[in-house]
Amino acid sequence: MIKDIDAEMERKNIQSMIVYGDSTTGNPDFRYVVGTSIARGGIYLKRRSHEPTLIVSNIDVGSAKKGRVRSIRTYSDYGLEKLSKRYDRDDARTRFYERIIKDNGLGGPVVIGGKNDVSNAVVLVDALRKRGIKIIGEKSPTLLEVARETKDRSEIEQLREMGKKTAKVVERTRQFLRSARVGGSNVMYKSKPLKVETVKRTIGRLLSEESIMAPEDTIFAVGRKSSDPHYGGEAQDLVRPSEPIVFDIFPAEPDGYWHDCTRTYSFSSPSRRVKEMFDTTLEAQESALDMIREQVPSNETMISVCKLFEKRGYPTVRSLLKGKKEARTRGFIHGLGHGVGLTIGERPYLSLFSKEPLRKNSVVTVEPGLYDPKVGGVRIEDIVVVGSPSENLTPLAKDIEL
Amino acid sequence: MIKDIDAEMERKNIQSMIVYGDSTTGNPDFRYVVGTSIARGGIYLKRRSHEPTLIVSNIDVGSAKKGRVRSIRTYSDYGLEKLSKRYDRDDARTRFYERIIKDNGLGGPVVIGGKNDVSNAVVLVDALRKRGIKIIGEKSPTLLEVARETKDRSEIEQLREMGKKTAKVVERTRQFLRSARVGGSNVMYKSKPLKVETVKRTIGRLLSEESIMAPEDTIFAVGRKSSDPHYGGEAQDLVRPSEPIVFDIFPAEPDGYWHDCTRTYSFSSPSRRVKEMFDTTLEAQESALDMIREQVPSNETMISVCKLFEKRGYPTVRSLLKGKKEARTRGFIHGLGHGVGLTIGERPYLSLFSKEPLRKNSVVTVEPGLYDPKVGGVRIEDIVVVGSPSENLTPLAKDIEL
Repeated sequence: MIKDIDAEMERKNIQSMIVYGDSTTGNPDFRYVVGTSIARGGIYLKRRSHEPTLIVSNIDVGSAKKGRVRSIRTYSDYGLEKLSKRYDRDDARTRFYERIIKDNGLGGPVVIGGKNDVSNAVVLVDALRKRGIKIIGEKSPTLLEVARETKDRSEIEQLREMGKKTAKVVERTRQFLRSARVGGSNVMYKSKPLKVETVKRTIGRLLSEESIMAPEDTIFAVGRKSSDPHYGGEAQDLVRPSEPIVFDIFPAEPDGYWHDCTRTYSFSSPSRRVKEMFDTTLEAQESALDMIREQVPSNETMISVCKLFEKRGYPTVRSLLKGKKEARTRGFIHGLGHGVGLTIGERPYLSLFSKEPLRKNSVVTVEPGLYDPKVGGVRIEDIVVVGSPSENLTPLAKDIEL
Repeated sequence: MIKDIDAEMERKNIQSMIVYGDSTTGNPDFRYVVGTSIARGGIYLKRRSHEPTLIVSNIDVGSAKKGRVRSIRTYSDYGLEKLSKRYDRDDARTRFYERIIKDNGLGGPVVIGGKNDVSNAVVLVDALRKRGIKIIGEKSPTLLEVARETKDRSEIEQLREMGKKTAKVVERTRQFLRSARVGGSNVMYKSKPLKVETVKRTIGRLLSEESIMAPEDTIFAVGRKSSDPHYGGEAQDLVRPSEPIVFDIFPAEPDGYWHDCTRTYSFSSPSRRVKEMFDTTLEAQESALDMIREQVPSNETMISVCKLFEKRGYPTVRSLLKGKKEARTRGFIHGLGHGVGLTIGERPYLSLFSKEPLRKNSVVTVEPGLYDPKVGGVRIEDIVVVGSPSENLTPLAKDIEL
C-alpha cells in the first residue's frame, strides 16, 4: 500500500526516490504514486519520512490535484523554460533534474523509477552522476513493487468494481452465445456458422458499454487449439458444438485497475474427456480458493493444486521438474496465479518458486487449467483479495454448458 | 523507416544496439523493430550492417515469426533456465545479457533501448558495465526516433486503414448526434437531456465495431469548457444548442498504429463569434494542408498559421513569445501538429522551434484551433502523409453544423 512506502524505504535503506514519466499511461509505478491520470506525466519526488512532491506542467495542475500528492509544483517553478533556451535538450534536462533534486533536499543515493525510454534514462543518469549526483536503480523486487503488492481500501473498491463490470460482460457474452444454435457440425448465428470474429466484436461492444476495455485482446480459443494457453483465437476460427471454449478476458479502466477472469464453455454437452478435465479443474480451483488466505506460503497453494491433478492422473509443472516431459504440453502446464492491480501481472505469484507468505489485501488470480493437444483446454479463473477469509471479486457462475 | 537503421547507426557512429521489453505493448521502439505483437516481449539485437536477431521465450516463437526479424532464437538457447537456478534474479539476468552480447559479437559501446522500468534498467546497465561491457544511452533524438519518423509502404497502409476506420466512427457519431433534437436550452435524446456520458458510450461502441480502441479516452468538450484544449469532457456535462463541441478522437489498433482527428460541431447554428473562429480555423487548416510538403521547414508551417490568425486579430503562441500574455488562454495556444505512428505523439513536430525540413513519408497531424474562455474552442484536425503533394488520411467532411 501507498502508506508502506516509508517503511519500505527504511527497510531497504533508501533515502530518496524519483519516479517520472511523460504520461501515467503504461507507467504503473508513476500512476500509483500520483494516484490519478496525468496526460503529460510529471516527476514525483519522495524523501523518506517526508510528504512527497509532484512536479507537472502548468496545464496539468488541475489533473494533478485529483491525485494523492498534496504538494504540487510546476516545471516553471524550477525554471525549465529558461534552461531550455540556454542549453540543448539533454543538457537542459540534466540541469533541471539537478535543480529539482537539490532544491528538494533529496539525499543521495537517489533511487530512480518509472517506465520510460531506457536509452534516454541512461543518458540522464550518466549526466547526473557526472555532476556529482548519485542515482541508483533497485534490485528486484523494487520498493514500489512491494508496496503495490497489497491494496488499500480504495484500490480494493476499484478492483471490486472491475470484477462486477467484467462479470457483466462475461455473462452477457454467454447470453449472446446462447442465442446461437447448434446446426450439424457448426454453431449457427443468424443462419451463418458462428466465427470467433463475431464473438470478439460482441465482447468489444459489451466492454464499451461498461466503459472498460481490453487493451491486450481477449482469449476466445475454441476446439483443440485451446490446448495452447496462449492461443488467443483467430477471427476466422469456427465455433463448434461439444468442443471446449476457453474464454479469458482481462479488461481495465483507462489508466486504472484490471480484472482477469476465465470461463470454459461448451455448446451442447462436452465430450466425456472434456467434462472430466472440467470437473477436476473446478475441484482444483475450489480447493485453491479455500486455501488462499493471508500467511499461507504462495508455493503451497500451487503444490496442493499440482498434487490434486497428479492424483487424478494429470501431469503438472511439478512432474515436469521431476523429468516427466509430457507436462510441457499436457496437464497443468502453467502457474496457479499472479497479482493484479494497475497491471495484469504483478506480485504476488502463485508459483512453485515463490515461498513468501501471502500478504493480507494482496489481490491474485486463481486459475488452474488442464490442457491436452488432442482435446483442447479448460481453465477457470477468479480473482480474490487475500484475507481471512479471502474475498472473491469475480461474481460469476462456473457451469461449462452454455 | 526500418531500412534506415543501418544508415542512422553509421551516421551516429553506433556499432550495436539492444532493444528489449517484457511486452511490445506500450513499448513502441521494441514493437517497431520486431514488426509484430509479442505478448511476453523479448530482446532485439542489431549489429550495424548485419541482420538483426530476436530472442524470445519458447512459447513466443510462433508470434515472433509473424514479425520482420528472420533470425529468431530462444532464451533457452542462451541458457536462461540454468543461470536462473544458479544465480539470484538480477545476477542471472546480467550474466544472461552478457552471454547474449558476447555470443552475438555485439561490439561496444552497445546502445540500449526500449520502454522499461528505469530502476531495473539502471541495475542491469551498472552490472554489465562492472563486467566490462560498455552500455550507453543515446542523446535525443535517438536513432529509432529518427527511423520511426518516416513510414514505409506497409506502415502507411496501416495508417490509411486507421484513418478510414476513425472517419467511420466520427461520421457515425455525427449521425448519432443528429438523432438528438434541440428542446429549449437542452439537446434531447430519448426525451432526456443529452449528456457527454451517453455520447462517449456511443463512441466506445462504434470504436469496438471497427475493432479499434481509444486507450487514452476521447475528448468531447462542450460549451465554454472546450476553450481548454486539454479538457476531455466529463460524464455529467450537458450538450447545449449553439455551443461549440470539440470532438477529438485518437484511436489505435491493439499494439498498432494510431489516428488522430478533431472536428468541431454545433447543434443548431453556432453564435456569430464561434462561426468566425470556425471559419478562420478552417481557412488556417486548409492553408497549412496546402503548405505541408517534403522539404518545407516544420516551423514555417506553424509560423504561417500564426500569421494568418494574427492578421485576423487572434493572439497566438508566437505573440506570446513577443510578450502578449493573453495568448496563454486565448487564440491559437498550442502547436500546429505532431507525428503519429506507433504512438500518438512523435517526430516530426510542427512547432515554432523545430526548423528541420519535413521528410517525405513522415505522417503528421495538422490541427490549428482557436480558444476563448468566454466562448469555447474550435479545432480541426486531419492527418497527412508528407509528400509532393501530401496525402490526407482523414476522409471526413468539416462542417460545423451537425
